Amino acid sequence: MPDRIYNFSPGPATLPQEVLAQAAKDIVNFNDKGIGLIELSHRSKEFMAVAEETEALLRELLNVPDNYKVLFLQGGASTQFAMIPMNLLGPGKKATYLNTGTWAKKAIKEANIIANADVAYSSEDSSFNHVPDQSDYTVDPESEYLYFVSNNTIYGTQFHSFPETDKMLVSDMSSDILSRRIDIKPFGIIFAGAQKNMGPAGATVVIIREDLLDRTPDSIPTMLRYKTHADKGSMFNTPPCFAIYAIGLVLKWLKKMGGVSALEEMNREKAALLYQAIDATDFIKGHAQENSRSMMNITFNLPSPELEAQFIQEGLAKGLDGLKGHRSIGGIRASIYNAFPRQGVLDLIGFMQEFEQKNG
Amino acid sequence: MPDRIYNFSPGPATLPQEVLAQAAKDIVNFNDKGIGLIELSHRSKEFMAVAEETEALLRELLNVPDNYKVLFLQGGASTQFAMIPMNLLGPGKKATYLNTGTWAKKAIKEANIIANADVAYSSEDSSFNHVPDQSDYTVDPESEYLYFVSNNTIYGTQFHSFPETDKMLVSDMSSDILSRRIDIKPFGIIFAGAQKNMGPAGATVVIIREDLLDRTPDSIPTMLRYKTHADKGSMFNTPPCFAIYAIGLVLKWLKKMGGVSALEEMNREKAALLYQAIDATDFIKGHAQENSRSMMNITFNLPSPELEAQFIQEGLAKGLDGLKGHRSIGGIRASIYNAFPRQGVLDLIGFMQEFEQKNG
Repeated sequence: MPDRIYNFSPGPATLPQEVLAQAAKDIVNFNDKGIGLIELSHRSKEFMAVAEETEALLRELLNVPDNYKVLFLQGGASTQFAMIPMNLLGPGKKATYLNTGTWAKKAIKEANIIANADVAYSSEDSSFNHVPDQSDYTVDPESEYLYFVSNNTIYGTQFHSFPETDKMLVSDMSSDILSRRIDIKPFGIIFAGAQKNMGPAGATVVIIREDLLDRTPDSIPTMLRYKTHADKGSMFNTPPCFAIYAIGLVLKWLKKMGGVSALEEMNREKAALLYQAIDATDFIKGHAQENSRSMMNITFNLPSPELEAQFIQEGLAKGLDGLKGHRSIGGIRASIYNAFPRQGVLDLIGFMQEFEQKNG
Repeated sequence: MPDRIYNFSPGPATLPQEVLAQAAKDIVNFNDKGIGLIELSHRSKEFMAVAEETEALLRELLNVPDNYKVLFLQGGASTQFAMIPMNLLGPGKKATYLNTGTWAKKAIKEANIIANADVAYSSEDSSFNHVPDQSDYTVDPESEYLYFVSNNTIYGTQFHSFPETDKMLVSDMSSDILSRRIDIKPFGIIFAGAQKNMGPAGATVVIIREDLLDRTPDSIPTMLRYKTHADKGSMFNTPPCFAIYAIGLVLKWLKKMGGVSALEEMNREKAALLYQAIDATDFIKGHAQENSRSMMNITFNLPSPELEAQFIQEGLAKGLDGLKGHRSIGGIRASIYNAFPRQGVLDLIGFMQEFEQKNG
């Protein structure tokens, strides 16, 4: 096994090596203060500075307008599936959802527990192999928002342009936040689990337009109200300190790499290389329709499940880890987030070609 | 500043140095697998083994009966304040609460949002300087459970014996879990944020009797149902992997030190040394009544707020950090959890005596 393998895991996922090295140092002795990072009180001036810098970097890198709050919460994207309707929909209210995969379906389920989800589109009948065009659905005039998953981790599909509607957008960007430039203004809420493009598991970033903070019904518990966290700078209770710190390190790295625009170009090139290799042969078939292909998660099949199992096993032996597709569609999935190195993509392509020569 | 200071912070708090050293190594390269701990998929066999070992150690060290589930959740103890009534109380149902401090009050507030909290006792009129005796309150026969905070971090008080009632007990043990032997059988739920006696911030341990998992009303969202997490071994969604891993390291350390019984003896001795120093002079006044004194958080006052500020500042210069009392009662607080070294207690006592000689 080499010193460092290529980790194609969909999340938790590969992180920049310099981030890991810095975390290793700080965990034992933060800034040479004689105290470890994870021992610092969240109210200490040292940790407050870490949290403030992380938020400021995220605002800068995503160009977050001043009338949005940036929150660092816990409970993963899955908790947001419930918090969004709890905060934005009272009983009898509705919102429109686009069903483009497992995570959209889960969000729809929670919206229906709390209020009413109008599912305007579903690609379930075609194994979620595409996302809809603008003309494929209509948004109910009574909907409070239009909800969509910008990138579908499991199926390897991605919205290349965002829905256009007079309703505000709400989006789960867990698997493509910070991977491409976005305009935040059409959005009421953007949220993302950290463990793909931003850092380790354990924190969820929520970007929320300020005027939405006062809508929450009185019946919603304190910790599930966005305003609770917005009013206290995500410090109402003890936050997930280590995850916030590590996100800050990843954002510093991202800034040094040239910011979101530079990463977007690199991501486009990495994905294009891999899709070219897929398209160059009939031995490999991409799962996603061409106009819905994800830059983050590249999903494909080999001629048989047996060959796929062999591919995954032989890849692992070559230090190409985490290539097994999600159980719901099987096959192969290569997750190549911001921090995934170009050389790993080239190595995978080389292995794909070699594997075809031997087994095609 | 010495290589390592003494950190009296109430949480996040001091951790064993060997835990920090191991985490620093694993974060860069876990078990020499060529992948960092925080990059591991939560579904990888490597991380699954970490999570299983952590749960097994917690069960062993706390002697958790087989009919209890051990969950690793997110959102802190504050989220449990709501989840407990959401799962155990339907509308119109009630539970009895003992109001022994800020965290009990917060739990009462959430119970009243969801159902009905019967507050059977409050020590608020005496600045929460004690916890009640058994004879000080009665539990409403219609209550579903009796809720109490076993150790009150802010005020430095602790239940030395637990309430006896035919109702099941529910307890927030955030600040004294694993610090003393307990009998789990009278409890329906025990919960604790990790960041005091167990590890870093970012995970909450919930120990719940299995028969309680089926009580939750249908209106409660998926992530807020205990059964969701119990059925999936805390892996329904991506768990707080780093926090679970670090708790595992702390538990290994605790086992090596002789387990909970051995730690209880050490904690008793550390606290006794400090209380003896407090009782030996009129210059220092303990906040908690003698029969309610906490082994974890020792709270005291000096003759004036000015002397207290000077004490905190001079202590910091000597490497005694985190001694400032909570803003709600002021004064001094020394938090001396499991991992806090005896030598740090001796150094604090030496400093107290020296400070009195100069300023008394």
